[in-house]
Amino acid sequence: MFKERMSDLTAEKVTLLIFGGTGDLAYRKLAPAIYNLHINHLLPDHFNLIGIGRREKTTESYRKDLASAIKNYSAQSWKEERWPDLAARIEYLSCDLTEESGYTTLKNELAVRAADDLVHNYLFYLAVAPQLFENIASNLGRSQLSLSSMGWRRIMIEKPFGSDLSTADRLNKVLCSAFADQNIYRVDHYLGKEMLQNILVIRFANAVFEPLWNHHYIEQVQITAAETEGIGDRGRYYDHSGAMRDMIQSHLLQILAVVAIEPPESLNADALRRGKIELMESISLWPEQGPGSKLVLGQYQGYRQEKDVKPDSNTETYAALNLAINNQRWQGVPFYLRTGKQLQEKQAKVVIQFKNPHLVSPWINRMEQKINGGLLPNILTLKIQPNEGVVFQFNIKKPATIDQIVPVDMDFCQPCAFLINTPEAYEKLLADAIRGDLSRFSSWDEIEKAWTLIDRLYQGKPGEEQKLYFYDPGSWGPQEAEKIFQKAGLNWWN
Amino acid sequence: MFKERMSDLTAEKVTLLIFGGTGDLAYRKLAPAIYNLHINHLLPDHFNLIGIGRREKTTESYRKDLASAIKNYSAQSWKEERWPDLAARIEYLSCDLTEESGYTTLKNELAVRAADDLVHNYLFYLAVAPQLFENIASNLGRSQLSLSSMGWRRIMIEKPFGSDLSTADRLNKVLCSAFADQNIYRVDHYLGKEMLQNILVIRFANAVFEPLWNHHYIEQVQITAAETEGIGDRGRYYDHSGAMRDMIQSHLLQILAVVAIEPPESLNADALRRGKIELMESISLWPEQGPGSKLVLGQYQGYRQEKDVKPDSNTETYAALNLAINNQRWQGVPFYLRTGKQLQEKQAKVVIQFKNPHLVSPWINRMEQKINGGLLPNILTLKIQPNEGVVFQFNIKKPATIDQIVPVDMDFCQPCAFLINTPEAYEKLLADAIRGDLSRFSSWDEIEKAWTLIDRLYQGKPGEEQKLYFYDPGSWGPQEAEKIFQKAGLNWWN
Repeated sequence: MFKERMSDLTAEKVTLLIFGGTGDLAYRKLAPAIYNLHINHLLPDHFNLIGIGRREKTTESYRKDLASAIKNYSAQSWKEERWPDLAARIEYLSCDLTEESGYTTLKNELAVRAADDLVHNYLFYLAVAPQLFENIASNLGRSQLSLSSMGWRRIMIEKPFGSDLSTADRLNKVLCSAFADQNIYRVDHYLGKEMLQNILVIRFANAVFEPLWNHHYIEQVQITAAETEGIGDRGRYYDHSGAMRDMIQSHLLQILAVVAIEPPESLNADALRRGKIELMESISLWPEQGPGSKLVLGQYQGYRQEKDVKPDSNTETYAALNLAINNQRWQGVPFYLRTGKQLQEKQAKVVIQFKNPHLVSPWINRMEQKINGGLLPNILTLKIQPNEGVVFQFNIKKPATIDQIVPVDMDFCQPCAFLINTPEAYEKLLADAIRGDLSRFSSWDEIEKAWTLIDRLYQGKPGEEQKLYFYDPGSWGPQEAEKIFQKAGLNWWN
Repeated sequence: MFKERMSDLTAEKVTLLIFGGTGDLAYRKLAPAIYNLHINHLLPDHFNLIGIGRREKTTESYRKDLASAIKNYSAQSWKEERWPDLAARIEYLSCDLTEESGYTTLKNELAVRAADDLVHNYLFYLAVAPQLFENIASNLGRSQLSLSSMGWRRIMIEKPFGSDLSTADRLNKVLCSAFADQNIYRVDHYLGKEMLQNILVIRFANAVFEPLWNHHYIEQVQITAAETEGIGDRGRYYDHSGAMRDMIQSHLLQILAVVAIEPPESLNADALRRGKIELMESISLWPEQGPGSKLVLGQYQGYRQEKDVKPDSNTETYAALNLAINNQRWQGVPFYLRTGKQLQEKQAKVVIQFKNPHLVSPWINRMEQKINGGLLPNILTLKIQPNEGVVFQFNIKKPATIDQIVPVDMDFCQPCAFLINTPEAYEKLLADAIRGDLSRFSSWDEIEKAWTLIDRLYQGKPGEEQKLYFYDPGSWGPQEAEKIFQKAGLNWWN
C-alpha cells in the first residue's frame, strides 16, 4: 500500500494517440499489440489509448470494434476477464486532422483529461496514409501539441518515409521542426522482428561465427523477403511505390545492415545506429566490369488488372539487387537482395554461403572426383519468417558408403524449442517507444543513406533505362534474375 | 554369359578361415557381418567361409548355428530365400590349433579344396583368446600356410594387441616372421564405425570447421566411451586388462588421432597412418605444474564379486586422462579422455568445447552482466554411438526478451536423415580386408606409440602409486574424476 501511494505521488501517465484509429493498421497490428502488452503486464500502470478518426463513432462502439479486431488478429488467446480493465482505458475521439481546427479540439480534449496530479506523456502514432504525414506533423508543431515542459511528446511514423531522397528530406525537416530528433520514432517493423534482433546476438555471443564472418570464408550473402500475396487493395499506394521503395529501401537494407555491421561498441541505440550508418556508407554498386546485372525488376502477370493500378503501369512488384560493401571485411563478397509479391513461398531469410571447401583443404579436389555432382558449400540460413530458426548445411560421408559425400542439415527451430508466442514486431516497437528506446528504430541518417542508394539504383523509370520483366504468379520471379550472379554456378537459394 | 566365362578364366577365390569359429565373436559379429555383405551383394563371386574349432561338429549343424546367430544378432532382417546360397559356402573343420599337427590337417584340407583353376586367397581371422595369438601366428608361419606364390595370405587379429609395450612388441615380431606387414590387419573395430570415418570428412570437406579447429578457438576436447554394462562373463580377460588397456590404448587414442590429426596428404592408408603416427608422437603428459591430475582410475562397487575376478582385484573399470598435444595447432588445449563400465548411459562421443565468446567479442562482457548464469561456450558434439549424429550448441536471444541469452542446439541425427541400416563395423572391416584396404586398421607404429604412452601413464599398479577410487554402478564414475580439469569451471559433458 505504501509503495503504491509513493508511486502515485510521482506517477506518470502515457497516452497513446492513434491517428487513423479506425484504419487497417490500428485494427490489425496496433490494437492486438497493445492487448498483448496488457495481458503480459507490460503496459505502464497509467496508460490510455485514444483512437482518433474523422468518422463519428462512440467510445463504446470503438471498444467493441477493437475487441473483435483483437480476437481476429492477436496471436494470443482472448482472455475475457482481462478485457474490461483495458477497455476502460480506451476512448474514441472524432476529429478532422486535415483541418487546423481539429488540433484545437484535440488540445482542449487533452487539457480536460490532464486535470489531475499526473505527469502526462503523449505518444502520437501516425497510422494514416503517407500523404498526410507532413500535414499532421506540421499541425502538431503549430498547435504546440508537440511541446511540453512536463512529460514527453513522441511521434511514431510509419513507412514509407518519403518516396525518394528529396521527399524524405522534406518530411524529415517538417518532423524535426515540431519534434526533437530523439522523440521521432521512425518505424521499420522488420527491426522489431525476433530474428532480426537475434542476428546480432548470434554473430557476437558465439565464438565460432565471428572468425568466419568475412571475405576469407564467405562466398556470397543472399537476403530474401518473398510474399505469396499480391497487392490486395493497396493499389493506390503500391502503384506509386513499387518493390524497391516498399521493401528494399527499408526492410532489406536494414537486414543487410545487421548481417554486415562491424561489431558495435555496445548494443545501445547510438552505437548501433553509428555502426549501421557506417555500413550503409560502405554499400556501393559494383563497377561496370565486375558483377552481373546490378538490378533486375519484374512485374507479376495480372498486376495491371489489379484494383487502383494504371493499366499501363511499369511499377515493379519484384526486385533483385547485387550490392558490394567496400570495406576490409567484405571485399569482393556480393550481397544479393530480392523481394517480390506473388512468389512461390512466403519467406524472409538470410543465406550465408561459405566458400568451397577446396579453398580450405586442397586434397578435397582429388577426393571430389569421386563425388557425384561435386561438393556443396556450407550454408548458414537465418530464417526470419514465417518460422524463426537457424539451419546449417554441411557435408558428411553418406552412411554405408566409403567416399560418397552428401550435404545434410543441422536444424534449430525456434518455435519448436520455446513454447512462447513470439511477440509481434509492433508489440516490441510500442513498448520501446513508451520506454524511450530508439535502438529498434531507423535514424534519419540511415534513411538518408538508403534513399541515396535507391535513387542511384533507380535511375530512370522502369521501361525507360531499366527493363521490366514479367513473371508468372506463383513462380520465383523473372528468369532474368539469375543473370544477377557474378560467377557461374551461383543461383538463388529458394 | 560371355562376361561370366571371362571372369571364370582368371577368377580368384577368397576363403575366410575363422579360428575360433564357434566362439562368441564369430557368432555375434563375424557371421552377421558376412551375412549382411552377402545380402548386399558385397562378397566376391567366389567366396567360402571355413569355421575352425576344436570341438566336433558337422558342417550341417554349424550352418544351423550360424543361421540362428545371424537371426539373433544381425541388424538386417532375415531373408530366408538368400540363405541357401550363403550356407552352401560355409563349412566346419575340427582342428586342434594349439597342436602343430592341426596345421598339417588344415593344410591338407585346403589343398584338396584348391584342386581347381582358381587363384586361392586366404584370410585367417584370429577370433580366439589373446593368449593363443602368438602360438597360432607362429604355427601359420612354420606350416607355410602364410606363404603363397599365387593369391594372397592375410591375417586379421583382434585386440588386445599385447598387454604392454614389450608383450605387444613380441606379438608383432611373431606376426611379422610369418606375414609381410601389409598382410597383417590389426583390428580396432572403432575404426570401422561410421562416425569415426565421418570425422575426417566433417573436418575437411567443409569450409567452416578447419579454420576453427585449433588452439585459437578450441578450449578443450573431451572424448567419452561410456558403457552401462559390467564385465559380464569376461572376467578372466578383463581382470588382467582393465579400462586403460581395453579401451584407452586402442579405441580412445584412435578417436583422438582422427579428431586431432593434421590434414593428411590424401585419404589412403599410408598417408592416414603417417598422420596418425605423427599425432601420437606429439601426445604428451602435462608438466607437473600445468594441468590437474593426469589420470584418475576407478572401479565400480561390486566388481570384485564378479565371476573370474580376484576378490582383492585392483583392476580399473574406469579411467579418465588429461593429455596434451605438443604441436602448433593444439598448444595449451587439454584433451580429456574417459571410459568406464557400469556408467549411467551408453554413449561414445567427442565434445569440442570452443572458447568463451568474450575472447572474440569484448563487449559481450558488458552484456553478460545481464545474463543469468553467464554465457555458455559453443559446443560441437560428434556422436559415435549408439546414434550417430552431430549437435551444435550456440547462443541466441531468448524469444520475447530483450537481452536474455540462452544456449540452444542445432541437431543432425544421422539415422533420422538416412533410412539406411548403418553397416556394422565388422562388415566394413571384413570387406576392407578382402579388398586389401588397410586404411581402417592400426599400424604397428601406432600401436607402439599408444603402448609407450599407456606404459608411461600406467606407472605402477593401481593401489600402489596410482590410487583407485570406487564408484556406484549407474553413476558417471568416481567424483575424483572432476579433479582432472586444469581450469576452474570446466566439467565433464555428460
